[in-house]
Amino acid sequence: MTNSEFNPPIEDRYFEDYIPGSVYEFGSILVEEKDILDFAQKFDPQIFHLDKDKARNGPFGGLIASGWHTTALAMRLLVDNFLSKVAGMGSPGSGPIRFLKPVRPGDELSIRVTVLKATRSRSKPDRGSIRIYIETMNQHRDVVMTRIGIGIVRCRPVSKKA
Amino acid sequence: MTNSEFNPPIEDRYFEDYIPGSVYEFGSILVEEKDILDFAQKFDPQIFHLDKDKARNGPFGGLIASGWHTTALAMRLLVDNFLSKVAGMGSPGSGPIRFLKPVRPGDELSIRVTVLKATRSRSKPDRGSIRIYIETMNQHRDVVMTRIGIGIVRCRPVSKKA
Repeated sequence: MTNSEFNPPIEDRYFEDYIPGSVYEFGSILVEEKDILDFAQKFDPQIFHLDKDKARNGPFGGLIASGWHTTALAMRLLVDNFLSKVAGMGSPGSGPIRFLKPVRPGDELSIRVTVLKATRSRSKPDRGSIRIYIETMNQHRDVVMTRIGIGIVRCRPVSKKA
Repeated sequence: MTNSEFNPPIEDRYFEDYIPGSVYEFGSILVEEKDILDFAQKFDPQIFHLDKDKARNGPFGGLIASGWHTTALAMRLLVDNFLSKVAGMGSPGSGPIRFLKPVRPGDELSIRVTVLKATRSRSKPDRGSIRIYIETMNQHRDVVMTRIGIGIVRCRPVSKKA
């Protein structure tokens, strides 16, 4: 079953709330041409990300978003909807990423997140690591990108007895 | 041996020019605080990327760049120095990424690129894929991030006989 809401809410979400097997969907974000060009100018000035006219004769037959732009937009959806506002401790890295289909101006991106694994730290028992599979989809529900994500999340504080 | 120049030049570089075992270094890019905040606002609004004051009490003891910002800056160094301006055909994805040390305001990033493998396509003999190991370093030459990159590159056109 896929959930579009994640309970508890993002301000009260801890390691224990990421249950392996859970699936969530969030989105969407519109990818505008100017955003594609702006990202490309700053970070990835390859012709097919940067120049609409020249891109037409390039390998993708038109302008496409940098894969790192798509990755960053998927991250935005993750931060706004899935990660915790109170217990997130960053990430030691990422598993493999696949860019499966081009992202073009006007596309609307959403994400489907599957919790793969949640492992409590042995050495630091106040936290654990979660491993997730992120599928980024366009408005046709084509998967344009996949990524394995890893996050360190603090455990729920033990509540004081009354 | 590490090279800081890659011959042939970027406007005349093809699949055949990426020789497994070659190592190159390129850089640097200064990471300014406003760039960290700007990237975080757009793509990764976690407190330790976004709010200098609150970041002080966070898991990294201060503001740090989003890992995707670091990835994007390493990509910029790759596009400006290592990839080809004439033969690049994009990427099917990325291998694993490790974020090893925080990137903080004022850091200067450079990259060391090792060509791991170059495989000519069997089905499309006009191109090949290159597999590279990218180490992103700060001004102290600490490796802050590593990534396995994959790129599709066109082969050098066969020159017409006179």
